[in-house]
Amino acid sequence: MSKIIDGKKISLKIKDELKMEVEKLKVKPKLVVISVGDNPASKVYVGQKEKAANYIGIDYLHEHYDSISDDNLVKEIEKFNKDKSVDGIIVQLPLPDGMDEKRIVNTISCDKDVDGLTYLNAGLLINNRETLASCTPKGIMKLLEHEKVKIEGTNAVVVGRSILVGKPIANLLLNANATVTVCHSKTKDLAKITKKADILIAAIGKKHFITRDMVRHGSVVIDVGINRVDGKLYGDVDYDNVYDKVAKITPVPGGVGPMTVVMLMENVLLAYKNHHK
Amino acid sequence: MSKIIDGKKISLKIKDELKMEVEKLKVKPKLVVISVGDNPASKVYVGQKEKAANYIGIDYLHEHYDSISDDNLVKEIEKFNKDKSVDGIIVQLPLPDGMDEKRIVNTISCDKDVDGLTYLNAGLLINNRETLASCTPKGIMKLLEHEKVKIEGTNAVVVGRSILVGKPIANLLLNANATVTVCHSKTKDLAKITKKADILIAAIGKKHFITRDMVRHGSVVIDVGINRVDGKLYGDVDYDNVYDKVAKITPVPGGVGPMTVVMLMENVLLAYKNHHK
Repeated sequence: MSKIIDGKKISLKIKDELKMEVEKLKVKPKLVVISVGDNPASKVYVGQKEKAANYIGIDYLHEHYDSISDDNLVKEIEKFNKDKSVDGIIVQLPLPDGMDEKRIVNTISCDKDVDGLTYLNAGLLINNRETLASCTPKGIMKLLEHEKVKIEGTNAVVVGRSILVGKPIANLLLNANATVTVCHSKTKDLAKITKKADILIAAIGKKHFITRDMVRHGSVVIDVGINRVDGKLYGDVDYDNVYDKVAKITPVPGGVGPMTVVMLMENVLLAYKNHHK
Repeated sequence: MSKIIDGKKISLKIKDELKMEVEKLKVKPKLVVISVGDNPASKVYVGQKEKAANYIGIDYLHEHYDSISDDNLVKEIEKFNKDKSVDGIIVQLPLPDGMDEKRIVNTISCDKDVDGLTYLNAGLLINNRETLASCTPKGIMKLLEHEKVKIEGTNAVVVGRSILVGKPIANLLLNANATVTVCHSKTKDLAKITKKADILIAAIGKKHFITRDMVRHGSVVIDVGINRVDGKLYGDVDYDNVYDKVAKITPVPGGVGPMTVVMLMENVLLAYKNHHK
C-alpha cells in the first residue's frame, strides 16, 4: 500500500461499483438537488453532483431558484418528501443570508436526507443506528477502511468540532471502537494531544495549521481542509513537511474531497434500497 | 466550598426553587409516567419521581400495565402526545424482555420527551440546540456549575460511552468548550489517559473501577456508577482511596443520583414553558 491515500482513485473505484449496481435496477434511484441564489462555489458543487449522478445512472433533478421564501421552499421540500419516485433530497448550502437553513434542512424526511444533516439523522448516528451519515465523515471512514487502517483500540484525535465533520466523525470513530479526543479553538496544549494520535483528523479550516512537530511518527493523517488562497487549494496539514513522518496521509486536493460526492451517491442508493425493501 | 460535591443538598435546593416557580403557575405542569411489568428497581424509581413531582406541585399520572403489546403501548403514547394537558411523558426502562424499547421511546413527541431519550433530542443536543437533555448528564453539568468548576479549556475524560450517560455528557462538555476524550472497554492504557483529566466522569458500571493511581492530583471526579453489591451501593470510583488526591468528588450514594430525578422535574417545567409560550 502506498503512503498517499489516493481519494481520487478510491472514489472512482466506488463510483464504478455504484454504476454497476444501478445498471441492474429497473427503476432508477432519483436525487433532487435544490439550490437558491448565485453562490459560485455552490454552482461548482452542484455541477459535480450532476456529473456523478449521470455517470452512475441516478436520475437527477436540479431545482434552482434565484430567490424563494422560506415558507415556499419548505412547501417544495414537503412535495418531494411525499413524491415516491424521489429517493434523496439535498439543499445546497449555504442558502442566501436571512434564510433559516436549520428549519429548511430539517424539513427533509429523515429517509431522504442523503446529506445526513437533519437532527434526526445526527441522533441516529450517535445512537449507532444504521443511518444516512453525512458524506464527508462517511468518506473518511471509507478511506480508512479501504487502506485497512486499524481503528479499534487506537487513539483518534479530531481537531475541529463542526456539525458537518468534527462531531459526526468523532461519533463514527467511537462507534468503531477508537478512543476519541475532540479538540478545538479552546484546547490548551494542542500539539501535546495531536502528538498522541494514531489517527489524526484535521478539520479546522486553516491552511497548514497542523505542522510537522504536531504529528506522531507512523500515524495516519486525514486532512479535511479545503482552504482556497490566491486561487490555490491548501489543506489544514503542512503536507510537504509532514509527509515523511507519517505512515499514511491524504493529499489536498485528491484526498477526502473526491469521496464526499461519491458518498452522497452511495447514500442515494442506500435510501433507494430502504424505500424498495 | 467543600471537597465533597453534595448532590443531595444541591438537588434539594433546586427542588425548592422549582416548587416556588410552580406555585406561581395557574395551570400546573403535568407528567405522565408509563411502566410495564414488575421490575423491583423500576418501582423504586417511579416512586421517587412521584414523590418529587408531588413535592414540587407537578401533576403526576402513573399508568401501569402488568403487560401490554408494543402496538397498544405506542397507541397510548400517541394519545398522550396529542393531549394538550400533558407536558412530559416518560416510559420507565427497562421494559420487559421482547418489547421494542427504541421504537416505543421514539414514539414520544420530541417536545414531551423529558427523559431526553429520543433520537431527535440526541440530534438536537449534538447540534448544540436548546433541548430536553437526558437527565443524568444534565445533572452532572448542574453539579459542575453549582461548584463553579471551570470547564472551558480543561481536559475532560469520560469513561464509558453509553447512550444514556457517556455520549451525551461528552457532547455537553464539548459544547461547554472542554477538550473531551471518550474512553471505553477497548481503550488501551486507560490510566495514562484518565491521569490527564482535569475533569473525570466515571460511567462504567463496575464497582471501584477507578483507583487512586488513575486520577490526577487536584482533579474533579464525578462518579456516575450505581453498583449494588450484597445490598450495598458502590460507585465506579474507589472513593476512600481517591478522596484525598482530588479537588472535588461526588459520593455514591448522594452525588449524581439525587440530581437525576430533579433534572427530570426541571425538564417537565421546561417542556411546560415551551408549550405555553
